[in-house]
Amino acid sequence: MTSTPDTLSRIAILGTGLIGTSIALAAFRAGIEVAGWDADGDVLARAGSSGSLTAAATLEEAVRGADLVVVSTPIGAVAEVAAAALTAAPDAVVTDAASIKSRIVDDLEALAGDESRRFVAAHPMGGSERSGPEHASASVVDGIVWVIAPTERTDQHAVALVDGFVRRIGAHPVHLTPERHDRLVAFVSHLPQVASTSLMGLAVTEEVDEPDLLLLAAGGFRDLTRLAASNPSLWSDILLGNRDQIADAIDLFTTRLHELRAQILRGRAADVERTFDDAKQARLRLATKPQVRSGVAVLQVEIPDEPGALARITRVLGEGEVNIEDLQIVHSPEGGRGTVHLTVGAPSAELAAGVLRGGGYDPIRLA
Amino acid sequence: MTSTPDTLSRIAILGTGLIGTSIALAAFRAGIEVAGWDADGDVLARAGSSGSLTAAATLEEAVRGADLVVVSTPIGAVAEVAAAALTAAPDAVVTDAASIKSRIVDDLEALAGDESRRFVAAHPMGGSERSGPEHASASVVDGIVWVIAPTERTDQHAVALVDGFVRRIGAHPVHLTPERHDRLVAFVSHLPQVASTSLMGLAVTEEVDEPDLLLLAAGGFRDLTRLAASNPSLWSDILLGNRDQIADAIDLFTTRLHELRAQILRGRAADVERTFDDAKQARLRLATKPQVRSGVAVLQVEIPDEPGALARITRVLGEGEVNIEDLQIVHSPEGGRGTVHLTVGAPSAELAAGVLRGGGYDPIRLA
Repeated sequence: MTSTPDTLSRIAILGTGLIGTSIALAAFRAGIEVAGWDADGDVLARAGSSGSLTAAATLEEAVRGADLVVVSTPIGAVAEVAAAALTAAPDAVVTDAASIKSRIVDDLEALAGDESRRFVAAHPMGGSERSGPEHASASVVDGIVWVIAPTERTDQHAVALVDGFVRRIGAHPVHLTPERHDRLVAFVSHLPQVASTSLMGLAVTEEVDEPDLLLLAAGGFRDLTRLAASNPSLWSDILLGNRDQIADAIDLFTTRLHELRAQILRGRAADVERTFDDAKQARLRLATKPQVRSGVAVLQVEIPDEPGALARITRVLGEGEVNIEDLQIVHSPEGGRGTVHLTVGAPSAELAAGVLRGGGYDPIRLA
Repeated sequence: MTSTPDTLSRIAILGTGLIGTSIALAAFRAGIEVAGWDADGDVLARAGSSGSLTAAATLEEAVRGADLVVVSTPIGAVAEVAAAALTAAPDAVVTDAASIKSRIVDDLEALAGDESRRFVAAHPMGGSERSGPEHASASVVDGIVWVIAPTERTDQHAVALVDGFVRRIGAHPVHLTPERHDRLVAFVSHLPQVASTSLMGLAVTEEVDEPDLLLLAAGGFRDLTRLAASNPSLWSDILLGNRDQIADAIDLFTTRLHELRAQILRGRAADVERTFDDAKQARLRLATKPQVRSGVAVLQVEIPDEPGALARITRVLGEGEVNIEDLQIVHSPEGGRGTVHLTVGAPSAELAAGVLRGGGYDPIRLA
């Protein structure tokens, strides 16, 4: 382990699906050599077509000469593949990209013993609704929060190497213990998924008796059930791998639901209103907080509610050489008709604001 | 009650906030004369500025000569105002616009007795995140589902008059009993609101101990908590007014959450995966169903992931005289990077699709 973040010249990616190949593309862009391996030869070949990595025939060949090995297989294989990498590359640091941490750290310590000091558990909190290496892009990891979750026994040089790698490829490291990571994602990621799936499941069960039910399903219902279309086997792995934290989060959530239900049944209008007002204030504060994707900026712009208004603002930005990452006409409670949220790369925020002001708009930076 | 939908020439709007004034604007557009009254003189004056209605000094003056009276006050005042309208206009049909129905029907029958046969409970399922007459627009009611919820005792001519009025101003009537309406909205509107508020409330409570919590809050969490910023007093009125149905919906929801929790804790991967897969299939079916706003069409278009791509598609549509109602770059699980969902008025769907094909795009109509 003589490499430092600056001298790190070669990495291996084990598991070349969407996230693995996206990391490979971001590393390649940063001048780092990448070898890749995947248990599925077809996936590996498609990842090789990205031009960012050299396909290796075996795990051992991939990790040879690597300063850092990134394990980005499905959750169930991470500990085993990481242990194999620690053995095959005795001088390398090994890290992973899975959505849960404590379970993986425990499994790896059982498999690799003291060698697991060279393993730095991590979770790049980016992704895409697509899967497979052909949908990979360096933009999947640009500016995202990348949780680094070492244990007390993890080698500090290994942690520093991973931290430096994350910064070098353009992401934003946040250090948490594995337990805190798992608790926080249970609330902000796993519980929303569980709530969305349960709401959709309930509606479709009720729909059997009430065929008009989904005819009345407007924007709010669609917002809340969008996550329900996520990958079932991926989510089964995540929830079972973080079962204690998610069980705790579900308990706290249902307790709140029961409390609100009791307030409603007892007709306690002031209590219900206060519960709603507390949540409203919190949500309005959240709207002004930076998103996980801290590498982007969000600008709010009022536009006239008339034909051509969108064409004009996108033309103004295009002529100003501003690349729009996302554009949303806001129908959220804190916004209004004719309000647009523009997402641009953080380095372009000033440029975009200037171009908009030059075009007669009055942008407000939200994040 | 000698008027028919076609001969209906004059209506009164009692309560001239956003929804009342939006109905006034849509009626005015359809050639119907509108008188308006509001308990708040300032709100009434602002509504008068819309040019769609004549402000009346009293409720009695407003309803004089009206074929139809629409009560669009806050929920707590609907029954009382409707009863006053039935007395003041003994030949008119009276309807309302509140989000709950059984409670209002019961309260009105207690107040107005047999006269309540001329009252047709209704719920235009449109609205805006804004409030106040200055944000009203006929587009708020264009093409929306407008539930008409008569009881067994409601006069059939009165029901036909309201049905015809709804069609004439451009909305889509759906007939349900008050009880069915209240049950269905408990699932597709009230429960999502309760879930969103409870999730946000829980996260902000946990945040006290875990200040990093909301740093990790990505798109999924934001989607699920967007509704939490809704109006607290409005929601307190709605939930207390539909307390039995919402209590039942919360019970069924928490039961599902507990079942899923038990599957997770017991490590039943196949059961969890099946629960998620059932919800996923239901959500994908929902994505292809028409929205409540059945007067609009949604077109899905793939665009290249490059600068200027949005400017080009909005320019093509603008040059083709297509008015874009909404545009969203889709990051939902069923879509992908570079996919845009365009919402246009239903009558423009064919035009928009033709203009897009002419511009080299391959639009798919979703709804």
